[in-house]
Amino acid sequence: MPQFSGLSAVLLNCSLVHDPAKSHTRRLLSRVAGIMATEGVAVELIHMLDHRIGFGMVKDTTTLGDDVDDWPAIHGRIMNADILVIGTPIWLGVKSSVATLAIERLYAYSSDTNASGQYLYYGKAGGCVVTGNEDGVKACAMEILYALSHIGYTIPPQADCGWIGGIGPGPSYGDPVEGSDVPMGYDSEFTNKNATIMSWNLMHLARSLKDLGGFPVGGNVAATWKESTNAADQDPDRF
Amino acid sequence: MPQFSGLSAVLLNCSLVHDPAKSHTRRLLSRVAGIMATEGVAVELIHMLDHRIGFGMVKDTTTLGDDVDDWPAIHGRIMNADILVIGTPIWLGVKSSVATLAIERLYAYSSDTNASGQYLYYGKAGGCVVTGNEDGVKACAMEILYALSHIGYTIPPQADCGWIGGIGPGPSYGDPVEGSDVPMGYDSEFTNKNATIMSWNLMHLARSLKDLGGFPVGGNVAATWKESTNAADQDPDRF
Amino acid sequence: MPQFSGLSAVLLNCSLVHDPAKSHTRRLLSRVAGIMATEGVAVELIHMLDHRIGFGMVKDTTTLGDDVDDWPAIHGRIMNADILVIGTPIWLGVKSSVATLAIERLYAYSSDTNASGQYLYYGKAGGCVVTGNEDGVKACAMEILYALSHIGYTIPPQADCGWIGGIGPGPSYGDPVEGSDVPMGYDSEFTNKNATIMSWNLMHLARSLKDLGGFPVGGNVAATWKESTNAADQDPDRF
Amino acid sequence: MPQFSGLSAVLLNCSLVHDPAKSHTRRLLSRVAGIMATEGVAVELIHMLDHRIGFGMVKDTTTLGDDVDDWPAIHGRIMNADILVIGTPIWLGVKSSVATLAIERLYAYSSDTNASGQYLYYGKAGGCVVTGNEDGVKACAMEILYALSHIGYTIPPQADCGWIGGIGPGPSYGDPVEGSDVPMGYDSEFTNKNATIMSWNLMHLARSLKDLGGFPVGGNVAATWKESTNAADQDPDRF
Repeated sequence: MPQFSGLSAVLLNCSLVHDPAKSHTRRLLSRVAGIMATEGVAVELIHMLDHRIGFGMVKDTTTLGDDVDDWPAIHGRIMNADILVIGTPIWLGVKSSVATLAIERLYAYSSDTNASGQYLYYGKAGGCVVTGNEDGVKACAMEILYALSHIGYTIPPQADCGWIGGIGPGPSYGDPVEGSDVPMGYDSEFTNKNATIMSWNLMHLARSLKDLGGFPVGGNVAATWKESTNAADQDPDRF
Repeated sequence: MPQFSGLSAVLLNCSLVHDPAKSHTRRLLSRVAGIMATEGVAVELIHMLDHRIGFGMVKDTTTLGDDVDDWPAIHGRIMNADILVIGTPIWLGVKSSVATLAIERLYAYSSDTNASGQYLYYGKAGGCVVTGNEDGVKACAMEILYALSHIGYTIPPQADCGWIGGIGPGPSYGDPVEGSDVPMGYDSEFTNKNATIMSWNLMHLARSLKDLGGFPVGGNVAATWKESTNAADQDPDRF
Repeated sequence: MPQFSGLSAVLLNCSLVHDPAKSHTRRLLSRVAGIMATEGVAVELIHMLDHRIGFGMVKDTTTLGDDVDDWPAIHGRIMNADILVIGTPIWLGVKSSVATLAIERLYAYSSDTNASGQYLYYGKAGGCVVTGNEDGVKACAMEILYALSHIGYTIPPQADCGWIGGIGPGPSYGDPVEGSDVPMGYDSEFTNKNATIMSWNLMHLARSLKDLGGFPVGGNVAATWKESTNAADQDPDRF
Repeated sequence: MPQFSGLSAVLLNCSLVHDPAKSHTRRLLSRVAGIMATEGVAVELIHMLDHRIGFGMVKDTTTLGDDVDDWPAIHGRIMNADILVIGTPIWLGVKSSVATLAIERLYAYSSDTNASGQYLYYGKAGGCVVTGNEDGVKACAMEILYALSHIGYTIPPQADCGWIGGIGPGPSYGDPVEGSDVPMGYDSEFTNKNATIMSWNLMHLARSLKDLGGFPVGGNVAATWKESTNAADQDPDRF
């Protein structure tokens, strides 16, 4: 049986571009998805702006009066997956409003727990894909990976990949290049290497966590953490 | 045999306070260390400012003309440990210069590889501890955890903990509280819970990675990534 | 004539709360607005979620197919004002999706120029107000003030103010406090001082810029920067 | 009399490179310095690592036991200047340890006040220069400009400039380019334009602030802020 069969991944494209076909971020996400699919992972790429997703720190914004909220369905698909990759463009050096919205809506469930009593997202692996034309891959990755870690995802080594062009405005990932049949960035060894390593590390980690039956339990259950060796009982001057 | 015996951890205190006894960050680090030591982990807390550590993106700054550089010895201890926790105070909302220096010096080795050909820090678990009197725990954690992830550490869920007081200047972690025999912050349920969960998650993850013989190999070796299913061969428009 | 008469300010509340009456961030924005109004400034507070504002790096998202886009009208009010204050709640340590959206939509006009040929927002003063219950005032302020500066606003000293409670979940700004008739945070000397200083500094700066007839022209006009003493002609090894 | 004569600027190079001649960041700083010097500003470029500067949140680290601390002398020069530009390389997406150290040492004086009772750095203009080979100009600028604003500097529009190469490792600013007599980045129109605009905006702002006799006084004096219209007296529900 292939090493990674039985795993599943959701890739969330948080582009500001309404038409998925025109999203640059989708193209790099697609390559990550391609690696995973080839290795036996069931992959789903969701274009956030194909959906109506409400603002608010709640699970379902129809409870706030919105007519429609597609988030609960998307969240269900994220919960069914072992891996989550958030893809974002860079604007003014930071992640998009849509990526921020996705993270807020993930966070709205963070007081829920899984069957072991750990926070809901324990036992899953998280990463991110960033594209822009100038600057900010790491700044976006810092915020996204931190948010995923904070709500319960485990983050493998080198869990981000991205592409930007040289300083200043210019073409974006996948734009045509005059005099070349290779679109912009498609042959970037750095981007391809990082996308490859990230994809494999997410699969390895998800495999390991699944084989372990989830993130190990003990000391990390909100309801019972005091019963394990805990911080409150440690001498702050012992070391 | 205890679950976590055989594991080791280095906690790096990047306080700006010269005398370790007066460092507030050390106190919270000490509690994290106490949990790990109680659970059988060999723990070492290193106070950066007890050492002379040079500036420069090199492994040893005596090669740049410094008389002394204590970093190579510290780095050796970090390499021998399964877990690294970086502790930092917050100044102006961000991590300290000493924490930034520690990360730069870790990064100077990042082109080295381990026995499997992966980046040097693969197979280890990383976390952080942050204290201040006002604001900035998450901003510090974002930068530190990202840096650790980027160079090869795996980051477990909820890998940061911290303490700050209310908005504005005020007492720091462990300062005396008038009319109470509990120093400031020692009874913060939130801080104690997060410190506990972080400590356990680092131990669980380090245990799992050690039992696996390191982070799984495949697709994540710099010299051979092209031989695995890789990004360069994936259709950017498949998904 | 009062010192600040003739000035105007827009305060943009980027809360995730749909009902303005329930927004904690509005309460601190209201105090900033109160100072300005008392000093003769024409103040307008806009609650972003009272409006339908589209996603996209365009001036008007109806051009992308949206039925409605209230942003162009809001942008017109921002352009008429001398001062812009962005108010945001903190979620997971960073500014809200709504604040990120507001900045993206401001940025979509950034290639426009004013009558002097400078970028559109030159000659205006910018600041921010941040509230949360735990941590992240400075991280939000960094991103917001940078964005405003980058697109042309001038940033006075201490251009941010905020309120958060102690570490961990808890009441928000203006929530009732048991056994007290002062709602949470209303008597925070630190928050009140910073809100006061920020408000006055924005008014002073806006007054000065208005009296100067805008930000001084020379070397900062996109179309003619090369005609002034410019970087391309300077010896990179002179200093 | 030339428009900017009588003004002075300190540019602080926070490179990790010990030998100033080899610092890439110095080269872009030098171009900024060149513009200012040509326009009549008295310019001084200080290479931080030419000096011994201690760690610690104090004005003078010899009070903590250090043999030498060159910071008080550097601080004196910064206080005499109307403009401060902090130059930093990017490492792992963020500003250098040396830049962080410089900001900490500036901050250690922040409870001091000027002759008007305002915080010490009021009335001065601040900016930053960032170079790297890959990614992070804006992330560095956010932290540096925020810190300068927070301690009292005024930040003009577009107060940062920088250069990075394409994604991934590569040559740095000013490195030789094979087959060209123009070193890397020297002909970047984007970098030159931003460096030019930043330099002029800093000069314009410093000139205006000097002509005003400093940042206007009123509502922004720590000792007397309560006597002006202040936040504590404003109705949080008025707007």
